[in-house]
Amino acid sequence: MNKKIQEPEEKEISKAVIGRLPRYFRYLAELKDEGVERISSMELSQLMQVTASQIRQDFNNFGGFGQQGYGYQVEYLYEEIGKLLGLEKEHKLIVIGAGNLGQALANYGNFEKRGFNICAMFERNEALIGKTTVRGIPIYGMDSLIEYVVENQIDIVVMAIPKTSSVEVAESLKDTGIKGIWNFSHTDLDMGKDIVVENVHLSESLMRLSYRISDL
Amino acid sequence: MNKKIQEPEEKEISKAVIGRLPRYFRYLAELKDEGVERISSMELSQLMQVTASQIRQDFNNFGGFGQQGYGYQVEYLYEEIGKLLGLEKEHKLIVIGAGNLGQALANYGNFEKRGFNICAMFERNEALIGKTTVRGIPIYGMDSLIEYVVENQIDIVVMAIPKTSSVEVAESLKDTGIKGIWNFSHTDLDMGKDIVVENVHLSESLMRLSYRISDL
Repeated sequence: MNKKIQEPEEKEISKAVIGRLPRYFRYLAELKDEGVERISSMELSQLMQVTASQIRQDFNNFGGFGQQGYGYQVEYLYEEIGKLLGLEKEHKLIVIGAGNLGQALANYGNFEKRGFNICAMFERNEALIGKTTVRGIPIYGMDSLIEYVVENQIDIVVMAIPKTSSVEVAESLKDTGIKGIWNFSHTDLDMGKDIVVENVHLSESLMRLSYRISDL
Repeated sequence: MNKKIQEPEEKEISKAVIGRLPRYFRYLAELKDEGVERISSMELSQLMQVTASQIRQDFNNFGGFGQQGYGYQVEYLYEEIGKLLGLEKEHKLIVIGAGNLGQALANYGNFEKRGFNICAMFERNEALIGKTTVRGIPIYGMDSLIEYVVENQIDIVVMAIPKTSSVEVAESLKDTGIKGIWNFSHTDLDMGKDIVVENVHLSESLMRLSYRISDL
């Protein structure tokens, strides 16, 4: 355990807090769209079904976001949390695997709104190579993957292929300069310290649901 | 806080432990497929990159799974964890929304192997109604949804439609006897105590990745 006293700006933010940030961002985006200008932690608490003290504690990790007695300024809070989440930067993504899941992810326009630009898809199936998705994203063959990633300075790779090939493909991407893998393949990818892996293991989520309904 | 002393069998298992069960199950399935009969908590720990003491602690929540000095019996552990996850029962699912994401979920054959049987899809788009998916799952119109769910005793509903319609559709399913919603729509669904909601908010996962790479 690291017990040295840390300066506030160096304090490590817990995984649980980080995990909640996107949900705050989602609610704030909705409030902003509805034209709400200010919200108290109490109102936000009721809306999000979490305690007001949790909200205050979470926000205190980031300096509190200037809450005054009369609440948070929605647009300011939305923008600050967006910055924390790295959403003010443009991200360049590719999707590996142009099956149903890959296409679903590539065609989901909302990602682009948040600065996640899907530049291309890569696929092994010859019948799909050279085509484009409904949103006009080109589908290339796997043999041009590495060159494309390096030349276009891709920072996020979406892995939407079966586990049998994902480990090998991930390995080949290690020195291309990518920063993160959004992993939908049903296996854990070990990319070392310089590449972050965020897993979306769909079957695990379905099993958690199955566990939770087993007592009903 | 509930501070009354609880019997071991009534002890509430923490969300974190439950969240890890499917991952244990996945590794055990792989070990079983590879013909491994026994594994020590140390070996399992190295494989899964968690501490051996965490594994023991997690398993102790469920009586320890009969670990002897020489390790766990893989098949037994696999089956016990499968039972805990409710996988020995058959589940009947429908998918609402036959877009790319809905089709990706419906066509993922591995769910069926675990007892999650996708019986039908429901869709608003007239052009898709009456067709079947590549795996032969029928696509029906939304007007037959409630009747189908009740008659076929569906227990899990997969929500793969935009948030604008998911709240209303979820509301209409409240008294149909369903037990769980696997929610991919970009909103929180409040279904009360008798229906469990497991969320897969994909954009939130992508934002967590964005947060984590922002320091790299």
